[in-house]
Amino acid sequence: MSPMSNHRARSSSPSSDQPTRRDLLVGAAVAAVAASAARHARAEGAARPVAVASANGLEAVRRAVERMAAGVAPVDAAVDGVAIVEADPEDVTVGLGGLPNADGVVQLDACCMDGPTMRAGAVAALEGFRHPARVALEVMRRTTRVLLVGEGAARFARSIGLPEEDLLTERARKIWLYWKANMSDRDDWVEFPGQVDDPDVAWYIAKYGVIRPTGTINLCAVDAAGNIGGTTSTSGLAFKMPGRVGDSPVIGAGLYVDNEVGAAGSTGRGESVIEVAGAHTAVELMRGGASPTDACLGALRRIVSATRVPALLDDRGRPNFDVKFYAVNRVGEVGSAAMWSGGKFAVCRAGGEPELLDCAHVYEKV
Amino acid sequence: MSPMSNHRARSSSPSSDQPTRRDLLVGAAVAAVAASAARHARAEGAARPVAVASANGLEAVRRAVERMAAGVAPVDAAVDGVAIVEADPEDVTVGLGGLPNADGVVQLDACCMDGPTMRAGAVAALEGFRHPARVALEVMRRTTRVLLVGEGAARFARSIGLPEEDLLTERARKIWLYWKANMSDRDDWVEFPGQVDDPDVAWYIAKYGVIRPTGTINLCAVDAAGNIGGTTSTSGLAFKMPGRVGDSPVIGAGLYVDNEVGAAGSTGRGESVIEVAGAHTAVELMRGGASPTDACLGALRRIVSATRVPALLDDRGRPNFDVKFYAVNRVGEVGSAAMWSGGKFAVCRAGGEPELLDCAHVYEKV
Repeated sequence: MSPMSNHRARSSSPSSDQPTRRDLLVGAAVAAVAASAARHARAEGAARPVAVASANGLEAVRRAVERMAAGVAPVDAAVDGVAIVEADPEDVTVGLGGLPNADGVVQLDACCMDGPTMRAGAVAALEGFRHPARVALEVMRRTTRVLLVGEGAARFARSIGLPEEDLLTERARKIWLYWKANMSDRDDWVEFPGQVDDPDVAWYIAKYGVIRPTGTINLCAVDAAGNIGGTTSTSGLAFKMPGRVGDSPVIGAGLYVDNEVGAAGSTGRGESVIEVAGAHTAVELMRGGASPTDACLGALRRIVSATRVPALLDDRGRPNFDVKFYAVNRVGEVGSAAMWSGGKFAVCRAGGEPELLDCAHVYEKV
Repeated sequence: MSPMSNHRARSSSPSSDQPTRRDLLVGAAVAAVAASAARHARAEGAARPVAVASANGLEAVRRAVERMAAGVAPVDAAVDGVAIVEADPEDVTVGLGGLPNADGVVQLDACCMDGPTMRAGAVAALEGFRHPARVALEVMRRTTRVLLVGEGAARFARSIGLPEEDLLTERARKIWLYWKANMSDRDDWVEFPGQVDDPDVAWYIAKYGVIRPTGTINLCAVDAAGNIGGTTSTSGLAFKMPGRVGDSPVIGAGLYVDNEVGAAGSTGRGESVIEVAGAHTAVELMRGGASPTDACLGALRRIVSATRVPALLDDRGRPNFDVKFYAVNRVGEVGSAAMWSGGKFAVCRAGGEPELLDCAHVYEKV
């Protein structure tokens, strides 16, 4: 999730030649073949139930598989799983304790999709409710609609009796104030003595540096019968423009489920995922016969091809940000791929322990 | 756009046999072959610039083609075109004069996408600005983001100096109050003497009956060089739950543009379009070689297949609502298809007059 490492890779790249698009695609293919994660995931077979998630979902996939083993539908199991991370104040990119927008307000986005009915639910820019994926599920179940945003989403959550609370933890507030102090020399906020010595601020600086985190949890689940569900939940890009919504609540971008094919979701730079309809692209590639890993790599290649704004490219013409896709097909094979090497994803199967596997990748960090 | 006619079709269908999925697909294929609109659109060649839009975009396509002929980029030309409809208080489904949400507040949704850069912009649940497509364009141009919603979207529009105004016309208010009076016997509002004799209310009843309109304008444009842009703009489903957002501002659902392939957009029941990532599906089908008309029919077939909730099916298992897709490929061929027969779409080419053509369709209204 840290584009900083991409910038580091830039300066130490073994070759400074500008790659052609063909080079990029060949590189991606090589990366795909070399990806031990993909081989591992397929070699271990396709035992179901199975859940695949972003790396922060290690406990979430365990819970989702437990729920499915107990007969819970995949979409409900997925929402139950991510609730662990939504409620965890230590994860500053999802739910309670998520980093706020530029105004210091936590605005959450989430969606879910149920394969058997092909119904979806979603909320965006939701304030005051720590479990946006649950709210999305309730939109799907209680209304004829899919997406509620802003105050309307909060009114809905309030009306069904979900507990309302301030989601801004003191830790997230301190990190936000550090961002405000260091954002610009042309405004009135400055760093005060000792500000960076605060443990929470020091932790943030060590983990993210000057990069605004885009963390998110995506979880897709397939039950023993081959039914599929998924969810994506996030607090969005840290310090975002108020009202900004990324790919997480956008069906087809941050999540897509087709009960006859499989499911896919994403984390990372959401705008780039929206602009290629990333999760839907991955599902379409699986529909055409691609493995989950190859489907994720194919969606990433679309992002490589669609990234044309110079500010988003490094000096070798590569996207200077990270995106990861996660996918599972209906038989239970899983896969994941990231724009840059070094990524992990979480998988759990019936009767097994959750584990972190290596994502395939398009570009090698050097 | 009127599902009422579908209900009429139900009672007078020549056969009451429940169709199998295969029957439906065969029926769609027959409809595609029979669609004179498709033949017409392809037969007249692919002169560019060209613009294709929903039927309410007859003047919009003219303006878009004029703009492109004058050198304006397709995405700007598209946004300029739909501005005619957004500013027209007579169209109660878009912009100024759009029917409000259940609270009587007009909330607008729109997006745009620029093929050459593959960048997109979007706003949802925007209050107080009559040209949401223009706001979406400014999000694309002035920020690193794609989607702004709710109060954040309004703040952005306000900050760049766009004029703020109350978009609820007296006509729309009277129609909303008529809806409130007739929505339920279990609330406190009742129809007052003479309410339905008001010309605005009588017009509404004659045009829409008890159906809540879902009108929208979608416009996709290809310039002489083959560059592509598009936009979709709406006031959304009439009397919607506050904060409800349909497919119009969802990149991949209500609009998708790929400069190497073509563009597609939609109008009609937005949730059903979101659940199949409709516009992206149509573009993917064109990428695979389908004509614009066949791509639109293919996206509709996905909706047929994904519509599984009994309340959305008629007694023959057919979707009891309408959706229309509009598409253009990079060489300038256009097409459109609707779930139900009788639909029209608007096309204009360089040097020609705008015209309304027949949409292909999946099901024949009897």
